[in-house]
Amino acid sequence: MVDLELLGSLAVKTPSKMVLLVLDGLGGLPNPINGKTELEAAYTPNLDRLLQQGACGLTDPVGTGITSGSAPGILALLGYDPLKYTIGRGALEAVGIDFDLQEDDVAARGNFCTIDESGIITDRRAGRITTDKCAELSRLLSKINLGTGVEIFVLPVEGHRFALVLRGKGLSADVSDSDPQKVGYPPKSVKPLSTEAGKTARLVNKFIEKSWKLLRDHHPANMILVRGFSRRPHHPSLASIYQIEPACIASYPMYRGLARLVGMKLLDTGPTIQQEFQTFKKHYAQHDFFFIHVKATDMAGEDGDFDHKVSDIQEVDRYIPEITQMNPDVIMVTGDHSTPAALKGHSWHPVPFLLYSKWCRKSRADKFCERECASGELGRMPAQHIMALALAHALKLTKYGA
Amino acid sequence: MVDLELLGSLAVKTPSKMVLLVLDGLGGLPNPINGKTELEAAYTPNLDRLLQQGACGLTDPVGTGITSGSAPGILALLGYDPLKYTIGRGALEAVGIDFDLQEDDVAARGNFCTIDESGIITDRRAGRITTDKCAELSRLLSKINLGTGVEIFVLPVEGHRFALVLRGKGLSADVSDSDPQKVGYPPKSVKPLSTEAGKTARLVNKFIEKSWKLLRDHHPANMILVRGFSRRPHHPSLASIYQIEPACIASYPMYRGLARLVGMKLLDTGPTIQQEFQTFKKHYAQHDFFFIHVKATDMAGEDGDFDHKVSDIQEVDRYIPEITQMNPDVIMVTGDHSTPAALKGHSWHPVPFLLYSKWCRKSRADKFCERECASGELGRMPAQHIMALALAHALKLTKYGA
Repeated sequence: MVDLELLGSLAVKTPSKMVLLVLDGLGGLPNPINGKTELEAAYTPNLDRLLQQGACGLTDPVGTGITSGSAPGILALLGYDPLKYTIGRGALEAVGIDFDLQEDDVAARGNFCTIDESGIITDRRAGRITTDKCAELSRLLSKINLGTGVEIFVLPVEGHRFALVLRGKGLSADVSDSDPQKVGYPPKSVKPLSTEAGKTARLVNKFIEKSWKLLRDHHPANMILVRGFSRRPHHPSLASIYQIEPACIASYPMYRGLARLVGMKLLDTGPTIQQEFQTFKKHYAQHDFFFIHVKATDMAGEDGDFDHKVSDIQEVDRYIPEITQMNPDVIMVTGDHSTPAALKGHSWHPVPFLLYSKWCRKSRADKFCERECASGELGRMPAQHIMALALAHALKLTKYGA
Repeated sequence: MVDLELLGSLAVKTPSKMVLLVLDGLGGLPNPINGKTELEAAYTPNLDRLLQQGACGLTDPVGTGITSGSAPGILALLGYDPLKYTIGRGALEAVGIDFDLQEDDVAARGNFCTIDESGIITDRRAGRITTDKCAELSRLLSKINLGTGVEIFVLPVEGHRFALVLRGKGLSADVSDSDPQKVGYPPKSVKPLSTEAGKTARLVNKFIEKSWKLLRDHHPANMILVRGFSRRPHHPSLASIYQIEPACIASYPMYRGLARLVGMKLLDTGPTIQQEFQTFKKHYAQHDFFFIHVKATDMAGEDGDFDHKVSDIQEVDRYIPEITQMNPDVIMVTGDHSTPAALKGHSWHPVPFLLYSKWCRKSRADKFCERECASGELGRMPAQHIMALALAHALKLTKYGA
């Protein structure tokens, strides 16, 4: 099995440049009218030309039949085994809003919730308060002083959800949840799960108690629940494995957070597809690996909006010349998972994958789509293998064995 | 690697229904007259229609180049890694004749054999006595009383083969074989291989001695050999992993035995293909996963009878509407291994696989056969992955990671 260790031992520094363009949720399903998927229905002359000169196949983010979340999907594309390189829930919540989680920080996922007069939880989501309300209450809780040199961050996420981060010396993530995961019970006291975690458990319990006092008059959001205490994972950086200087062009916080986690430089960019491609052009000279993430395709899929997904794909296609003009050594276009409009959510279907390089055996396929990729020369492979393909085609991998 | 633990953590209860139709030994080889395989030669309009609306690929029961026995082939189709979830030889012999092997039973594979006057084995198979003779002698040995509260079952299998099962307290499977595996030697004394196995070794040796006395006048079957002492394996049940209520429709004892081992409900059925499909229809409401096993195709293959295998496949095809009429969420059709008539036995060739569900990317193939499946959209995969695909298409798997 080719893994990061092997790739790391073979990769060398070269002047070659690589682009990984991720259309989030790219893979689709046939629509009932003409039997075409989103990608099949889209007019994509630029992607098709790239494919004709390159090669194609299908990728599985996690494995056959498994529907991947965004985090494992992205990590797999970057070469990390998504079943091995996991992220704790609290750390992902903080990273996912692009919070710069430090080495020693401890993060938890938080909910605002409702309790009755006797302290029993009656709604774990506080009537699903708005994100604005969540931000207001998070600011309120941010003022809590635990008085021990430990800094606290209360970061609004969405609706009733927030991330709690503790920063300071001698902290441990080895503490239990306060969230009993069901209504009809009081919040639990947080307990240390190892001998070093006593201080952290005490601090978290103190924070919860102070939160309760501050939130008293904010019914339905009159209490908090915390769970999934975890630290920033220590995944080896892309630079250290692949001998590259990687940059991330993404406007969505989650993807910026993941990119930061694996050591990418985050480039400032606007939220539109056009702005992302402008950012690419502007910074092309400074990096040799570009991860460009387009969120729109996934959002259209999640909304069940087939036509919108088609037009998002077409918009990306119009900007492909912005990449090809720069003449990088390797261009890869794929998704982190499928999001068929028909399913209105992520799915397990393998993802179309296009690889362009002058070292490809030229493709028989003439259209970038699910069905052509299914019989493509690259076959069906785990998504975590594409970085090895990219490095190979960039002539960045030395020979294995004599 | 997607394994049972991961699937178990993602699977949820749903009202969806799944059918796994196994045509034993389905895969074939081209015949010399027109170059078609059995499946290619067969007229299968119903299977072809299912394929056109679904997807196809090829499965490897154990791995590239490996010819699978029936037990690993079936276990793989049900999601069990056949190299990990093994069954001891004795246990398989008992389970394979649909004997209800209990938790604490110890089972061995037995042969009737021939010894000369000095006790030397001259024929390990007792001149291949008939199965009737085997049954008669097994009844004779069943009367042996070891007088220690340990019950004995001597179960005829086929020809010279029988299964020996010991039932009682304090038994161990950790004893050596009496079978020296070659002629010209006397049967060996059975030895304990661990400290707890002393009692079992003594009892088995006593059983062998008493058998010899009873068989004295039954030349050529005047002695027995036993080997492969083992217990019932503890594979996790299908219900516990997949959150399903599975039923088995099989008339052959081996497949019923395996199905029982993984916790399927065994439905009463007759030996014909028609009767198996009638049983399916009758019990459709009570279960949500049906394993239908057709033995005829494998038998025709083993006999080298190409035409008979073709007509068996065609017969199954005529009953496909019995399944489609019930409108299950997922239908899978495949084999547990290939049995080409040309080879008159199991083979290593990958097996055609058809998946039907409304969530498939529609197939380009129009005929269910080896060559179309080889370029099918599902690619070539380990057989143990098909259950993940079934669960995915039945919308029974939650997302992995956030």
